[in-house]
Amino acid sequence: MKNVTPVRVIYADTDAMGIVYHTNYIRWFEIGRTELLREAGFIYADWGGKGYHLPVIEVYCHYRQAARYDQVLLIETSVGHVNRATVKFNYTIWSEDRKKEMVEGYTIHACINAQGKVVRLPWEMIDIIKRALD
Amino acid sequence: MKNVTPVRVIYADTDAMGIVYHTNYIRWFEIGRTELLREAGFIYADWGGKGYHLPVIEVYCHYRQAARYDQVLLIETSVGHVNRATVKFNYTIWSEDRKKEMVEGYTIHACINAQGKVVRLPWEMIDIIKRALD
Amino acid sequence: MKNVTPVRVIYADTDAMGIVYHTNYIRWFEIGRTELLREAGFIYADWGGKGYHLPVIEVYCHYRQAARYDQVLLIETSVGHVNRATVKFNYTIWSEDRKKEMVEGYTIHACINAQGKVVRLPWEMIDIIKRALD
Amino acid sequence: MKNVTPVRVIYADTDAMGIVYHTNYIRWFEIGRTELLREAGFIYADWGGKGYHLPVIEVYCHYRQAARYDQVLLIETSVGHVNRATVKFNYTIWSEDRKKEMVEGYTIHACINAQGKVVRLPWEMIDIIKRALD
Repeated sequence: MKNVTPVRVIYADTDAMGIVYHTNYIRWFEIGRTELLREAGFIYADWGGKGYHLPVIEVYCHYRQAARYDQVLLIETSVGHVNRATVKFNYTIWSEDRKKEMVEGYTIHACINAQGKVVRLPWEMIDIIKRALD
Repeated sequence: MKNVTPVRVIYADTDAMGIVYHTNYIRWFEIGRTELLREAGFIYADWGGKGYHLPVIEVYCHYRQAARYDQVLLIETSVGHVNRATVKFNYTIWSEDRKKEMVEGYTIHACINAQGKVVRLPWEMIDIIKRALD
Repeated sequence: MKNVTPVRVIYADTDAMGIVYHTNYIRWFEIGRTELLREAGFIYADWGGKGYHLPVIEVYCHYRQAARYDQVLLIETSVGHVNRATVKFNYTIWSEDRKKEMVEGYTIHACINAQGKVVRLPWEMIDIIKRALD
Repeated sequence: MKNVTPVRVIYADTDAMGIVYHTNYIRWFEIGRTELLREAGFIYADWGGKGYHLPVIEVYCHYRQAARYDQVLLIETSVGHVNRATVKFNYTIWSEDRKKEMVEGYTIHACINAQGKVVRLPWEMIDIIKRALD
């Protein structure tokens, strides 16, 4: 299962080099994984309401091509792995025609509870995320 | 009382026009008012700890000159007014040599309590902020 | 003519008060006016290619209700005025059901040419923008 | 040679989890490497004026501890390597008392010229950056 969500580059996303500032792709990764999880039936906001969060503990990003103002980009997201300790998401950001791979990367997330303590991912959460692995 | 705090423009602050993206000056206003209040003995973080916040309810900004990458800017902040309903801060952002007025603006803030309800500003808060009016 | 464009709040847009950080609505204003102009046949990126830009010279924003994580918001944008010196856009940001007015504001823009000089808005530009006034 | 530059967390840097949003540390990496280079006599803005830029081609970040509103953090930056193809910077972000390592990571940069083409790093650039290796 792969989620593909489009975003359009605005001025706020660019920098004085004329290209998208590098951290903004990583911000878009958040959109990608939220929409992938939503598609799998996992509403991140609901889990947050119960006190569970999945903060990013590692991020890696490789920038291949620079995106520019007003370009439409496609954020493609898939689950890399999910286990009791961590969940990993893989991302590729494409040009709108899918001919250029702009950026690829991953994020790894742990689970914390309402007290901010690192805990094992609840089985229910793992089961839902696993749907996105199929 | 006026607080003057310097910031240096980084690429993240700029856009593809080669200048600072307009919302970033308003982000710097936050630095200005926090430091002004700190100077007056008001630690915003401590009030937040007690559940009181001063969310922005109005902002106005006039952009006179465009700032560029690596420029040092001076954020000058003063209290416009403070009463039981609102507190207003005025800002001028200068070039480092103070010869150019880049931006001027204001923010108006209400007070909310731990339940997120709009409340009157506590007298103790007003008294401390008033110190910054002298 | 009014353009309505949806955005969904992500964590990146929020702050430790649990609500959308105030400058992010103003960033969304950019999406609103770009899409309104696109609808009217004005591709901002094309004018930028010719060296013309419409930098923000004034912004005002009134925050009425706080938006939260994962909320869908509607950015409603219309042209306030357009003349040879400036163009003004008005914005209202609504909750998805349009029952709550979260934020309203405006931006005023001047025109600069490829040399960064303030110039009169080209008649062709004014004519296209005027379509959005109907 | 290591550069240590302080930053103070503002509301704009935080998210609704109550902690610094993960991309902001990577934005602070930019401050760290710019100040390290400045200390070594390399003014990034001057090279940009000549048309040379060092865009980020890879970033990695490991988040160990969450920073919070109003905390002062220390960005420690050093050069990992520099050769004709790339330059690498290593970063550790510390709590103000240096007792907690909040984040560590690296960025790798290629060199592009005024035409946006990837080129070898000019020898003069390499020589200056090498000063920061001592």
